[in-house]
Amino acid sequence: MNDLDGWRRRINEIDQQLVKLLNERSQCAVEIGHLKRQLDLPAWQPQREAEILRNVVKSNAGPLDDAAIRRLFERIIDEARSLERHSMESGTSFRKG
Amino acid sequence: MNDLDGWRRRINEIDQQLVKLLNERSQCAVEIGHLKRQLDLPAWQPQREAEILRNVVKSNAGPLDDAAIRRLFERIIDEARSLERHSMESGTSFRKG
Repeated sequence: MNDLDGWRRRINEIDQQLVKLLNERSQCAVEIGHLKRQLDLPAWQPQREAEILRNVVKSNAGPLDDAAIRRLFERIIDEARSLERHSMESGTSFRKG
Repeated sequence: MNDLDGWRRRINEIDQQLVKLLNERSQCAVEIGHLKRQLDLPAWQPQREAEILRNVVKSNAGPLDDAAIRRLFERIIDEARSLERHSMESGTSFRKG
């Protein structure tokens, strides 16, 4: 069982890093939302989303397959889009809480 | 537009790190699948999945809210579970391609 616990601890460590990076990414989306509002640009830019998916699939070395990476980043982009929209409407930065 | 490009470049960098970490996490799930097969343990352990979600929500500092973090990790766990199942069936490590 010790090995199993070891792998699970490693997953817990990775998850802490993932939470941090996902939030850092989301903060970028919030800033982009503010800029788009100032520049009067549309919230949804499908060519940028396609570019993001191309980039992540290109750097994928597995064991996740490309379809799994695409599914994961579609969810990540979806959450970013909703934060970005919110920041375009409110025009202010906001934090959880 | 330069600022917008800067934030997008930062997102691209973060995405490279995310792809790496997501794959590293998946490799842990593959190893766990092998161990579970050796130890004759069930693939699905709902109390472990609940623990993962508790951990990530606890370390969430925003701007993503807890529901968004939960949605993202439900997808991450889902992809890990399917790789883990695969590795329990095949009993061998595998890489993308």
